Amino acid sequence: MALNMVVMAAGKGTRMKSALPKVLHKLAGKPLLQHVLDTMAPLDCAARIVITGHGAEQVEARAQAQALRFVRQMPQLGTGHAVQQAVPALDAGAPTTLILNGDTPLVRRETAEALVAASAGSKLALLTVVLDDPSGYGRILRDAAGQVLGIKEHKDASEAERQIREGYTGMMAAPTALLTRWLGQLKNDNAQGEYYLTDIVAMAVAEGVEVVATQAGSETEVLGVNDPVQLADLERRFQRQQAETLMRAGVRLMDPARFDLRGTLEAGAEVEIDVGCVFEGRVMLGEGVRIGAHCVIKDAVIQAGAVIHPFTHIDGEAAGVEVGEGALIGPFARLRPGAKLGREVHIGNFVEVKNSSLAAGAKANHLAYLGDATVGERVNYGAGSITANYDGANKHRTVIEADVHIGSNCVLVAPVTIGAGSTIGGGSTIAKDVPAGELWVARARQTKIPGWTRPVKLKK
Amino acid sequence: MALNMVVMAAGKGTRMKSALPKVLHKLAGKPLLQHVLDTMAPLDCAARIVITGHGAEQVEARAQAQALRFVRQMPQLGTGHAVQQAVPALDAGAPTTLILNGDTPLVRRETAEALVAASAGSKLALLTVVLDDPSGYGRILRDAAGQVLGIKEHKDASEAERQIREGYTGMMAAPTALLTRWLGQLKNDNAQGEYYLTDIVAMAVAEGVEVVATQAGSETEVLGVNDPVQLADLERRFQRQQAETLMRAGVRLMDPARFDLRGTLEAGAEVEIDVGCVFEGRVMLGEGVRIGAHCVIKDAVIQAGAVIHPFTHIDGEAAGVEVGEGALIGPFARLRPGAKLGREVHIGNFVEVKNSSLAAGAKANHLAYLGDATVGERVNYGAGSITANYDGANKHRTVIEADVHIGSNCVLVAPVTIGAGSTIGGGSTIAKDVPAGELWVARARQTKIPGWTRPVKLKK
Amino acid sequence: MALNMVVMAAGKGTRMKSALPKVLHKLAGKPLLQHVLDTMAPLDCAARIVITGHGAEQVEARAQAQALRFVRQMPQLGTGHAVQQAVPALDAGAPTTLILNGDTPLVRRETAEALVAASAGSKLALLTVVLDDPSGYGRILRDAAGQVLGIKEHKDASEAERQIREGYTGMMAAPTALLTRWLGQLKNDNAQGEYYLTDIVAMAVAEGVEVVATQAGSETEVLGVNDPVQLADLERRFQRQQAETLMRAGVRLMDPARFDLRGTLEAGAEVEIDVGCVFEGRVMLGEGVRIGAHCVIKDAVIQAGAVIHPFTHIDGEAAGVEVGEGALIGPFARLRPGAKLGREVHIGNFVEVKNSSLAAGAKANHLAYLGDATVGERVNYGAGSITANYDGANKHRTVIEADVHIGSNCVLVAPVTIGAGSTIGGGSTIAKDVPAGELWVARARQTKIPGWTRPVKLKK
Repeated sequence: MALNMVVMAAGKGTRMKSALPKVLHKLAGKPLLQHVLDTMAPLDCAARIVITGHGAEQVEARAQAQALRFVRQMPQLGTGHAVQQAVPALDAGAPTTLILNGDTPLVRRETAEALVAASAGSKLALLTVVLDDPSGYGRILRDAAGQVLGIKEHKDASEAERQIREGYTGMMAAPTALLTRWLGQLKNDNAQGEYYLTDIVAMAVAEGVEVVATQAGSETEVLGVNDPVQLADLERRFQRQQAETLMRAGVRLMDPARFDLRGTLEAGAEVEIDVGCVFEGRVMLGEGVRIGAHCVIKDAVIQAGAVIHPFTHIDGEAAGVEVGEGALIGPFARLRPGAKLGREVHIGNFVEVKNSSLAAGAKANHLAYLGDATVGERVNYGAGSITANYDGANKHRTVIEADVHIGSNCVLVAPVTIGAGSTIGGGSTIAKDVPAGELWVARARQTKIPGWTRPVKLKK
Repeated sequence: MALNMVVMAAGKGTRMKSALPKVLHKLAGKPLLQHVLDTMAPLDCAARIVITGHGAEQVEARAQAQALRFVRQMPQLGTGHAVQQAVPALDAGAPTTLILNGDTPLVRRETAEALVAASAGSKLALLTVVLDDPSGYGRILRDAAGQVLGIKEHKDASEAERQIREGYTGMMAAPTALLTRWLGQLKNDNAQGEYYLTDIVAMAVAEGVEVVATQAGSETEVLGVNDPVQLADLERRFQRQQAETLMRAGVRLMDPARFDLRGTLEAGAEVEIDVGCVFEGRVMLGEGVRIGAHCVIKDAVIQAGAVIHPFTHIDGEAAGVEVGEGALIGPFARLRPGAKLGREVHIGNFVEVKNSSLAAGAKANHLAYLGDATVGERVNYGAGSITANYDGANKHRTVIEADVHIGSNCVLVAPVTIGAGSTIGGGSTIAKDVPAGELWVARARQTKIPGWTRPVKLKK
Repeated sequence: MALNMVVMAAGKGTRMKSALPKVLHKLAGKPLLQHVLDTMAPLDCAARIVITGHGAEQVEARAQAQALRFVRQMPQLGTGHAVQQAVPALDAGAPTTLILNGDTPLVRRETAEALVAASAGSKLALLTVVLDDPSGYGRILRDAAGQVLGIKEHKDASEAERQIREGYTGMMAAPTALLTRWLGQLKNDNAQGEYYLTDIVAMAVAEGVEVVATQAGSETEVLGVNDPVQLADLERRFQRQQAETLMRAGVRLMDPARFDLRGTLEAGAEVEIDVGCVFEGRVMLGEGVRIGAHCVIKDAVIQAGAVIHPFTHIDGEAAGVEVGEGALIGPFARLRPGAKLGREVHIGNFVEVKNSSLAAGAKANHLAYLGDATVGERVNYGAGSITANYDGANKHRTVIEADVHIGSNCVLVAPVTIGAGSTIGGGSTIAKDVPAGELWVARARQTKIPGWTRPVKLKK
């Protein structure tokens, strides 16, 4: 049965000390609100409504979900007032309305489903959490039989009530019709002059509508973000969760506390990831891939058996990066968008590859730049050699055919083609095509400068 | 009313297993003792006295504070004996004397002020701390009314006394005149033959002088350093404190447990700092600056909107480093002292810049060295190019005027000037000035070597 | 008196999700089983028996210890069945048999010795551990006098028995003759149809053989590895232990939680190691050595006073790496096998050294490659210069004698010798030997290309 899902996302988040609306701050590289939307995407929703307010335009521009609607709460007169704005957008035919927080990113879908099930079309179901220290949370009051009687705000609670360890999380599911009616009856006759959503609990009790509580599985899933300290804490909890999921699937992490994944990581069997690595975007690691310490890898496909040595930076944003089976990369290598490396390619230290393909067995082991190049099988690209792909105005392509040996400190001035099996002598600048199977150089004769004396240190 | 401040700094710190006197070991890059002196600098002190002993000369050479005086305790016959050495240096006109530990670096000024206030010119005020596990601490004995009766050393305490969770921290404030008199009455008739400062508590009680206790705000501020394990623990606590302070001010830290600041960091709004970064000296980050993972940055000013990619090493020691607005630096860049980069300068991978200015829009994106160079606006400095600033004896300057395009793998032999708008062809070594607006090369003709055959692998 | 030592290593470790047998998974770079064998190597053993099963061939190929014997358990019918396989290999003359787990890598030798001593040639001694939460452990049942009566599996335990905090670790010592007889009496009449080693406890009690418990010193030493999460947890515990041992010996670690040692590290006095460093193999750090943040160092000897700047990668596998006294290395340096650096050698950023010796005072400060080179004292090896040691088929040696100055972006085509005190002009490719004391260049004349106009950006 379809739901109305309402996500509260109007808050400013003053304590974030940021111009960015709170729900757009990122956890693991994704806005808080988007975590909620993505988690709940599989729910069968008649309407998905996000209540915006502070920074509404930014929030509305970035939030993404199927059949998403936005309603604006301006000015912001409390949580009840927020949900009131959503009433016109609710699908009256959806019997239950689920209310979530846009700043509580780790709530689980299973929990939301349990909350909706507990509401059962006729009850008011509150998501609660049992904590050792529930300070700050509204406490769940129950009668002797355990029946929920209401929520008492922390600041209004008696000493005895503060001993209650069950707190309200701000999330609930309610029968749509009742919710709509109750929202219409909210009053703001309190010190703050605000409309509180939680006031509907008393209305339900007064009307004899059963109020039930569904307890969250862990504190983590109900933690909200109010300042950068809480955000950092939640980031680490989420990273730990991701790390455990990967480890239980067989990935070996040398230190789960020093693993960051901001996106998705697919890993085959026998994958090992050393300390300090950061993964972003979509990364695929084939069977037996090993990632050395302190690598940063974004949007890349790394095939089975490849070894990525420490201090390697891979960024395939947009164009992607592919690393072939058994390739050896790094240390201190940088692969940029469009680097496509075949089987057993070697890219060594201080080598940059951008928008270039290297066929199987090609090697660039030392201090080199390959940009806009097509490199054939088994090519050996010498230390210090550069593809001069940019003439100051336009970029051009370098083609190095199979089995070419490029000496050290060469410059290949694109557009240029080096024919298969040729060799370019060290220190050559090559601006014209070279036929296959030949040795070419562009090198001045080695000569002595007569009468030379070594410079001496000047007095200052 | 001015104080006498006395800091105990004579201990050897045997368990540090180091030739360096204990109080000179560094926490967050600054000697332990200096933390205390800097924290207390705003206190109105008639005299600031540091009691030195082990490594006295080193300690005296490095400790810095206004109106600082040193007294030496040699030999070292206990804490009371230490303070006795300070008596001649006390300002008798300062009614209160505050006694601090040079190896307890995180004590807060507010706590010291509270201690002095508690002494109130007539009482003996002890700084105490309430701990879950006060093992090792001397326990504060009180009568039924809560009045302090004395301090019982852990080793002398009964089982009941060991249940007391309030321990003495070694810090106190006392009326100067009383303290002076009591110090003169200390005896060393104990097993160790030492003069204990804490014996004055019994003297105060015996004389009817009120003894009061001021409780520290947290354990952290009273933790002393006795071995490298404790030092490492305190380092992490202090780093966490600094991280929280920055986060509460709005800085986004991806992992506060992997953030190190050894100096001062000023950060504008919307600053983001990824995992594993280390800051030293004085660093300023303008609004919106983003620092990638695993950067090490010392003594630098980074203007608004600049992006520092991962694995960037910036060290501006002495001469400083400046990075202009919107500049893009790294990954794998190194900026050394005297690097002054203008707006939107790009410094890419495997590029080193030392004692050089780059005007707005200049770029050195790949594998290059710029040393002792003046680089104009919009210059494009090619991959693999080098300023040969050192002739083996002296350093010389390279001037590259605006809009110059330096090809790949060039050598600019300083002193040399490349005129505005010129281009230097790839692979050129340029030792003479180049006029504006021209293309110059120093390049041998590309030729085929006839009769060449590819080398074959020798048998070994 | 000699022992029989039996190590259980037949398990598959299904939850490891790996083709590698569980005991071959690595903790700090060494297989779990090997930790146990190495820890127990000093024990006086008549026989060391490893019971293999899953992946027996791999395990037998990699486990190393003196007088090691393997017995295979196939199929695997329980712990008792496992030890039954070892019976024929036991030395009947060794009065005590010690049974250890190959997946419990951190058990201490002192604990094993205590267990053997508790067995005292006549008793059954169980290694137990007292835990706050012993869930999952078999509980040690004792009578009112504290005498051990048996082990109750967690799943079979009553609620009262589950309150018992003493659990069985799977390790024991038993009189060899009794153990052999008991093993012969084991039955598999249980739900799983397995032979349980723990059934011998009931036999001992029934026969009036005293059963005693030796408690492990900490939980860490009895933790087994069943999945990658547990392995990661144990890795961090072990790394923390190693870090504390080093710190107590005087090594300054900026963050013990970000220190990894997979092998052995010897460190002199006053050594400092910054955050994020990884050490592998055998590393020796002389007095006063400082290691910057984020270094990866394997198989290297670094002499007193050397400074290794951040982001340095040293890998001396097989051939070793030596760094001389007072040398300065990095940042972004890479030293590969066979790099032998003398006193006060400087290796700077983006420099790679492989199979080369540099004598005292030699410098390669920027963007350079030295491979298969012999470099004399005080040589200055210019930025961007390369030893072209590989002709595409064979490697050749470069000799640079003392006091040579190699300019920037040179190529030295090996085999070649540069005589003492010579200078090579920047941008030169040198393929023939250069005599001592001369200046040589291979450089084209700097010329203007007439009629040149700057390229313009093409429309796409």
